Amino acid sequence: MSLYAGIEAGGTKFVCAVASDFDTILKEERFPTTTPEETLPRALDFFRRAEEELKDQHGAITSMGIAAFGPVNVDSSSSRYGWITSTPKPGWKNTDIRGYFVREMNVPVGFDTDVNGAALGEGHAGAGRGLDTFMYITIGTGVGGGIIVNNKPVHGLVHPEVGHMILKPREGETFQGVCPYHSHCVEGMCAGPAIKARWGTPGDQLPDDHEAWDVEASYIAQALMSYVLIISPERIILGGGVMHQRQLFPKIRKELKTLLNGYVDHPAILEEREDYIVPPGLEDHAGITGAFILAAGAAHR
Amino acid sequence: MSLYAGIEAGGTKFVCAVASDFDTILKEERFPTTTPEETLPRALDFFRRAEEELKDQHGAITSMGIAAFGPVNVDSSSSRYGWITSTPKPGWKNTDIRGYFVREMNVPVGFDTDVNGAALGEGHAGAGRGLDTFMYITIGTGVGGGIIVNNKPVHGLVHPEVGHMILKPREGETFQGVCPYHSHCVEGMCAGPAIKARWGTPGDQLPDDHEAWDVEASYIAQALMSYVLIISPERIILGGGVMHQRQLFPKIRKELKTLLNGYVDHPAILEEREDYIVPPGLEDHAGITGAFILAAGAAHR
Repeated sequence: MSLYAGIEAGGTKFVCAVASDFDTILKEERFPTTTPEETLPRALDFFRRAEEELKDQHGAITSMGIAAFGPVNVDSSSSRYGWITSTPKPGWKNTDIRGYFVREMNVPVGFDTDVNGAALGEGHAGAGRGLDTFMYITIGTGVGGGIIVNNKPVHGLVHPEVGHMILKPREGETFQGVCPYHSHCVEGMCAGPAIKARWGTPGDQLPDDHEAWDVEASYIAQALMSYVLIISPERIILGGGVMHQRQLFPKIRKELKTLLNGYVDHPAILEEREDYIVPPGLEDHAGITGAFILAAGAAHR
Repeated sequence: MSLYAGIEAGGTKFVCAVASDFDTILKEERFPTTTPEETLPRALDFFRRAEEELKDQHGAITSMGIAAFGPVNVDSSSSRYGWITSTPKPGWKNTDIRGYFVREMNVPVGFDTDVNGAALGEGHAGAGRGLDTFMYITIGTGVGGGIIVNNKPVHGLVHPEVGHMILKPREGETFQGVCPYHSHCVEGMCAGPAIKARWGTPGDQLPDDHEAWDVEASYIAQALMSYVLIISPERIILGGGVMHQRQLFPKIRKELKTLLNGYVDHPAILEEREDYIVPPGLEDHAGITGAFILAAGAAHR
């Protein structure tokens, strides 16, 4: 009998939940991400109450998984494994979030990026189900991506930060993007704040046929072109607030085909297939589902 | 007792060899890649002669591995697995190279791209040794890359084609590159023919302090920036004819640091470490070593 504790630790909100398997949430709570001093004990308190309430029927919490905003340290051999490291979010730089729960909960704790967590969740029960190699990309207040290759999240030196790749500006482009680190990077050119900065209006207040969406689709497609050429994913899942604009999907598929210009000889690209570039299957439960998968992985180590 | 047959099937030359383990080549032959009708029987003839000569001491050939130029089909569930598919090389389009040797040799045959083969070889005994996640990139007459993630080559939908990612042109750039498919792609801007087209002189005839190398390093570094942000490799191995220009290495390390602008907070980048962006360890034996590894994998399937 397993009882998993999961945290989707986002930069804006924490989702905490307890589940008896990856699909069955028994108790859940969501609250804003303020300071570590306030937010971490609040999460701990939730898990203690939940365990108390559930233990007669389900036993104690057996392991925990955290899918966290970053940058984070995901190198399990490092002394800073499970830390949120160089984040610009006030108060969170160098926070040993995993260590806090290891100490307080005294169970194995799995850890990964929020986007790898969402990718794991989508792979289990969403749009990545049954695939070995795929990407989950979120385009919202920022741009991030989780990558699954041969059924495992990609880590490597640090972890992917797919939102900061440089794009080639369109003919006559005057906008440099809003990223403080890089001009013309994906996040700086495509995320929600970029749309607002360029057009003076948030994306969700622009009409569906506004030219903003052609510009947006062309830059997203250019980013996807690089992802296709480097990772060769079997599917690309596009989530996040900006991708609620569903009119973007056909535009992106078409532009990706144009940009690749026949070089990747596969019907998924050439036929602009609707099952290649897709919305998420789980929407806002992908991250927490991934956290349970991380919990299960930690228990079996 | 194992006897591996390996082919590094390059677009210019075939390297055929027989080995008793990944590091011990017993017999080797190199010849130009002409037509399939001429080249494949020539390779077969080599293996038959080698086996005849070696069988008293080593037994018969137990399995074979092919690391081939492409694009190729590396999807083992496909009816076209082991084919060279949409290559521009005359005569080779839709060549069932793996099937030919399966039929003629009657042993298990492993198959992958030439660059994944080189990456496997470098991982076994070269600059990728001991690493889980790294890239091997060749910059020569073209640009290609093999990617190892969690100890396995990346395939996905097709296979990586990292040379065709689009780059942002430098300030005042007038050159569009030499790729017939994409303007400003890595191969079109950085490969040997691009250097010759831009400066009117092949790279190996330009002095080491020619400005060509600053331009070259800045575009290679931009490509590496994307690879770092997407794959997060623990090391990047740069091979191929252009990278014989060793003065490029420090320039690329410096430019990569500048471009990332502190965003990837790791000493490998921030200290421009010499063990992060490196030349190959095996030079021209990486591909054939990878072919033996593919042979061993096929034997154990």
